[in-house]
Amino acid sequence: MRPNRLKQIWNEGRPVLNAWLSLPGAAAAEAMAAQGWDALTADAQHGLIGYDELVPILQAMRASEVTPLVRVPWNAPGDIMKALDAGAMGIICPMISTVAECEAFVQACRYPPLGYRSFGPSRPSMIYGADYAQHANAEILTFAMIETAEGLENVEAIVAVPGLDAVYIGPSDLSLSLGGEPRQDSDDPRILAAFDRILAACKAAGVRTGVHTNSPAYSKQMIARGFDLVTVGSDLRYLMGGRRDVLEMAKP
Amino acid sequence: MRPNRLKQIWNEGRPVLNAWLSLPGAAAAEAMAAQGWDALTADAQHGLIGYDELVPILQAMRASEVTPLVRVPWNAPGDIMKALDAGAMGIICPMISTVAECEAFVQACRYPPLGYRSFGPSRPSMIYGADYAQHANAEILTFAMIETAEGLENVEAIVAVPGLDAVYIGPSDLSLSLGGEPRQDSDDPRILAAFDRILAACKAAGVRTGVHTNSPAYSKQMIARGFDLVTVGSDLRYLMGGRRDVLEMAKP
Amino acid sequence: MRPNRLKQIWNEGRPVLNAWLSLPGAAAAEAMAAQGWDALTADAQHGLIGYDELVPILQAMRASEVTPLVRVPWNAPGDIMKALDAGAMGIICPMISTVAECEAFVQACRYPPLGYRSFGPSRPSMIYGADYAQHANAEILTFAMIETAEGLENVEAIVAVPGLDAVYIGPSDLSLSLGGEPRQDSDDPRILAAFDRILAACKAAGVRTGVHTNSPAYSKQMIARGFDLVTVGSDLRYLMGGRRDVLEMAKP
Amino acid sequence: MRPNRLKQIWNEGRPVLNAWLSLPGAAAAEAMAAQGWDALTADAQHGLIGYDELVPILQAMRASEVTPLVRVPWNAPGDIMKALDAGAMGIICPMISTVAECEAFVQACRYPPLGYRSFGPSRPSMIYGADYAQHANAEILTFAMIETAEGLENVEAIVAVPGLDAVYIGPSDLSLSLGGEPRQDSDDPRILAAFDRILAACKAAGVRTGVHTNSPAYSKQMIARGFDLVTVGSDLRYLMGGRRDVLEMAKP
Amino acid sequence: MRPNRLKQIWNEGRPVLNAWLSLPGAAAAEAMAAQGWDALTADAQHGLIGYDELVPILQAMRASEVTPLVRVPWNAPGDIMKALDAGAMGIICPMISTVAECEAFVQACRYPPLGYRSFGPSRPSMIYGADYAQHANAEILTFAMIETAEGLENVEAIVAVPGLDAVYIGPSDLSLSLGGEPRQDSDDPRILAAFDRILAACKAAGVRTGVHTNSPAYSKQMIARGFDLVTVGSDLRYLMGGRRDVLEMAKP
Amino acid sequence: MRPNRLKQIWNEGRPVLNAWLSLPGAAAAEAMAAQGWDALTADAQHGLIGYDELVPILQAMRASEVTPLVRVPWNAPGDIMKALDAGAMGIICPMISTVAECEAFVQACRYPPLGYRSFGPSRPSMIYGADYAQHANAEILTFAMIETAEGLENVEAIVAVPGLDAVYIGPSDLSLSLGGEPRQDSDDPRILAAFDRILAACKAAGVRTGVHTNSPAYSKQMIARGFDLVTVGSDLRYLMGGRRDVLEMAKP
Repeated sequence: MRPNRLKQIWNEGRPVLNAWLSLPGAAAAEAMAAQGWDALTADAQHGLIGYDELVPILQAMRASEVTPLVRVPWNAPGDIMKALDAGAMGIICPMISTVAECEAFVQACRYPPLGYRSFGPSRPSMIYGADYAQHANAEILTFAMIETAEGLENVEAIVAVPGLDAVYIGPSDLSLSLGGEPRQDSDDPRILAAFDRILAACKAAGVRTGVHTNSPAYSKQMIARGFDLVTVGSDLRYLMGGRRDVLEMAKP
Repeated sequence: MRPNRLKQIWNEGRPVLNAWLSLPGAAAAEAMAAQGWDALTADAQHGLIGYDELVPILQAMRASEVTPLVRVPWNAPGDIMKALDAGAMGIICPMISTVAECEAFVQACRYPPLGYRSFGPSRPSMIYGADYAQHANAEILTFAMIETAEGLENVEAIVAVPGLDAVYIGPSDLSLSLGGEPRQDSDDPRILAAFDRILAACKAAGVRTGVHTNSPAYSKQMIARGFDLVTVGSDLRYLMGGRRDVLEMAKP
Repeated sequence: MRPNRLKQIWNEGRPVLNAWLSLPGAAAAEAMAAQGWDALTADAQHGLIGYDELVPILQAMRASEVTPLVRVPWNAPGDIMKALDAGAMGIICPMISTVAECEAFVQACRYPPLGYRSFGPSRPSMIYGADYAQHANAEILTFAMIETAEGLENVEAIVAVPGLDAVYIGPSDLSLSLGGEPRQDSDDPRILAAFDRILAACKAAGVRTGVHTNSPAYSKQMIARGFDLVTVGSDLRYLMGGRRDVLEMAKP
Repeated sequence: MRPNRLKQIWNEGRPVLNAWLSLPGAAAAEAMAAQGWDALTADAQHGLIGYDELVPILQAMRASEVTPLVRVPWNAPGDIMKALDAGAMGIICPMISTVAECEAFVQACRYPPLGYRSFGPSRPSMIYGADYAQHANAEILTFAMIETAEGLENVEAIVAVPGLDAVYIGPSDLSLSLGGEPRQDSDDPRILAAFDRILAACKAAGVRTGVHTNSPAYSKQMIARGFDLVTVGSDLRYLMGGRRDVLEMAKP
Repeated sequence: MRPNRLKQIWNEGRPVLNAWLSLPGAAAAEAMAAQGWDALTADAQHGLIGYDELVPILQAMRASEVTPLVRVPWNAPGDIMKALDAGAMGIICPMISTVAECEAFVQACRYPPLGYRSFGPSRPSMIYGADYAQHANAEILTFAMIETAEGLENVEAIVAVPGLDAVYIGPSDLSLSLGGEPRQDSDDPRILAAFDRILAACKAAGVRTGVHTNSPAYSKQMIARGFDLVTVGSDLRYLMGGRRDVLEMAKP
Repeated sequence: MRPNRLKQIWNEGRPVLNAWLSLPGAAAAEAMAAQGWDALTADAQHGLIGYDELVPILQAMRASEVTPLVRVPWNAPGDIMKALDAGAMGIICPMISTVAECEAFVQACRYPPLGYRSFGPSRPSMIYGADYAQHANAEILTFAMIETAEGLENVEAIVAVPGLDAVYIGPSDLSLSLGGEPRQDSDDPRILAAFDRILAACKAAGVRTGVHTNSPAYSKQMIARGFDLVTVGSDLRYLMGGRRDVLEMAKP
């Protein structure tokens, strides 16, 4: 099986640079995959991507070096296993607030005896190698999103769940849940304190950390703060760059 | 944020005229949206519409005045939140039989602290306004379907769930559950008595009411009976009007 | 090969009742095919149907008795042959104004030595029979649209082109070309005189006749006038029936 | 309502020959449906098929004699009911390990009072007959997959669940769960012993049995062993036959 | 009929700011349409957009103020008329090198007696008004691309073709045809001289001018040079902005 | 630019093993691409593949070593150039019967000054290299189909057209045109004599040769006869292998 590049990057001591796909359509995904990102995450939760659009998106990014991740709509076994069978090398699962939720998530990503993932990886075997079945449990990455007050409260216990590889922070939801505005790239001390608590818990447990950002500048700060993965780019945000050009044209 | 037109119509004392979409395909939806309905409901439960067909349907009706509703396949957080992020201004949730089910449904439609909807409304912010996050809890409509004997038994408690805006009756399921035939436009006294009980409970609780019908004539009766929303039209039923033309042609 | 039902209907002395598909989407086509029409025409000219939507439309109507026709975008060999290979049992070709245009059209529908259709009918052989190749030249129907002043002027010569099975009249284009309004269901004497000239030319040549209408009533008149095929119904017009229901609901 | 052909085949004492669809795309399904199988199962669990691809697949196989089954992604009411409303004549549900899971599955396939399936079968009524509602509970087949150690342990109780028509064995998952390799066409005595235990439990309970295989040869053995349905063919495996041709060409 | 906004902008003495769509997928088009451009051109020539992707793209941009243009694959009547019936308010036609080619193009966009466009504008009538037929000849814009040495040589005669509204320059093709590199945003004096010849011919004939650019800066130069429309933005180029972010992240 | 592998294979003195895609759907294409073929041809002429299905097919085969070819629907510039911009490394053009037709075809594949291909290769530049423009004329392969009596008569002149790389024989059409049955894998001496005439003309002109076959056995004969490319496999034929399995199962 082709090893998971993200693990290699981490082992080399580098942070993973991730970009985000919210748009359906394989052509946009193919173009995003050609830009040099370490990972691309197809967002099947808040993005406009359902399962039948997810498959061609994963196909279109396959020829590039990029590692495909999928954020699933919810912590539901069907969603998780279908994303894996479609070829995801890692799953980002939203709204993990308890140990039980984390166990349900992680075990959905693992074949017995480590979990209850059902067997039938036709596409992964074809594209990653006939020995996928033997190595998938070790190579597939599991990212639990900590983004609620309850999840923050339980973070030390959650990160101790066997098989959890990483925590991914959704800053907007976390901020909302803590009583703030749903902001990204926040410098609110409460949010940054929450980041630091999560970072500390993860380091102690040997679990990787990732965070959603809205700019390269904030991403750099987050790498400096200790995150192992930063989501820097976004298909939708790039398209919205057009507004800047319109305004530029309107200048005298 | 663009205010929810259905609330305005109700505030003006008028009933909402709704039509139903069972067919995938954005072109049919665009044509239906041009006919003057107050609301169009894309039926992702019994209609032939999955998430990847739902998105272009919602896009195609956007240029018309019509307010987009979605009936979700089931009371599942992933289904509900994805429909909202796709742009639904209201969710009709099937098979609400208990207070707990109703709370799970309603809170999936509300951001904290009122619920547990996850944040990331890219399309709604783009099409309804950048202040969507602040107003969504107030503008998004929640319709719980009362369509089981158990739901009927619990209706007074269900309609007291905070954040529930309306009840929508599915007459076929309700009739089946009460031991009858799965009929629409029924004049069975048991069914009409159930309607009246639901209407009374809703009026008492300040909750709106809607009902599925199969004809303008029955819709008019239901408005007279007190319903605030009637589903009058249906893409599939209109297409089946062709049979009438075939028979007309066959007349001597 | 399954014989062409339209030929059988004509041989039995009955007119063919046709309906029109302007919408992409296999589900709408399947519903239309279930209404009892003799023929359904997928309109790849003015309808919103390209080739990749045409194929599932033809698949979805296959289980019904209806005979599938396709109106091609233009008199172009690629368009015509692809529609036939997709399973059309007849082609309606727009804007045939000269004998040369008619010959180019008809021969694109016929295998050598009668024409220059290229061989490779994978789907037709699968669904109509392995002997499709032997019978296709006899069973596939060719409809030339006479809808220009020039076409009307040349109609007697056009209908003499070997291999032409029928003429189909596009009343809007014909009216426009003759200096009138693009109206359907016209009672303009000039239009009706043009119809009669075409009908007479076709009868004399043993060629069938069809006409586009906007209602069962006008269709009946056209059958009485002598047409062998009338287009009575339309998916788009049925959907627009919703407007009538909206108005009905608005009545006091 | 059109009776379920699989029941007729079983009543005639013949085994059902099933083939498997893992690929999205109606054209491949139409071609597979033309090969003479008794049943075709669209695999919405491990196959690359989501709901919006499932609908055209079911439409494309409708014109053939084949009986359409769907394996759903998970034991979730929304998935099951949507597959039935799309036209499935039977549901194969993965990972049934307990009586409670089996009851939840079976009752999702049955209208009240036998279950809690929601009513609205537009497409089934159109294609199977207007009396679908009256006969669906009797004609729709329910297949519970026994493919875990726990399911095997509970098999005698599971097959006693009212409304369960058949058990379908997933040999790879079963083998994994029992501590072996995820192999198909196994001759491992432990696996064959598990097969025999399931067969015996089913015979005793009057429940049919089916098994996934990877070849006609093993299928024949399984019929001899007592199975009522064998999955013999697979779209994906046929396409992979190309590799054999490549190797054949490379021979000197 | 809704008037063509581009004509209004020109009448107000402002240049039209256009952006380019090369990607299939309605969601990307909807996002681009929300950025404030005067016009969006769906490129069905070099973009990855066929007819069945073009329709939802045009639907998705309808709710914004933007005026939809389509560049057709070639000067072919079927391509042109289908784009117009899909809702294009203007057609950009590639490779117009002679008066005859220009006449064939322009007349394909005009109903008789000005041209030979076939009648059947179902979607345009629905979205632009029931009087579309009366005003379409006046409101639909025709852009002939001058992008060959031969076209440049004939430009004065081409722009005199009745019904031609504008010339659009494809700088890469023009440069290639003149023996240079296929460059955009060129400062090659031969190219700029060609621009000036075309501008002069158009001004003399009362024909508008547009040009493809690769940046706001060059667009501003071209407006200063006299162009009435500049293509400033591009969906694909915006997505490729990701590479800049990757490099930025890699900086120490 | 990535060099064309087929040229390399020929330079190494090996025949090219090609397989045929008639089915839409990227997943089938991806599976076919994984089997080890030198080339895969997406058949946009007789296959059920339009432009909007062609793009994801080409994307899905990109990660494999296979070289993508496209058979276009007809000798039309729009079809040819769109296939090239979608990423085809070679075009097979049907029905080339004259020198003029061959010139029109070949020049549509070549940038000036060798032809009139329009410039805008966004996807090819992204996937094959930024220097695509400089090398495309040399690397893109042009295959003219000789499949009519007239084409056979003119073959010596046709193969002398500058820029023609290869001839591809369509045996069914050729046989039909010569007055025979539309058979593949023919041993009719007239057909074999036609093959030999074409082979001889091509060898003399330094032009490569390819032929459509229906089996590895006949392919081997054709390689021995002198062909440089043989089409051995076919997605549709592999799926139809299911019939063999059905019959095998029916054996006692």
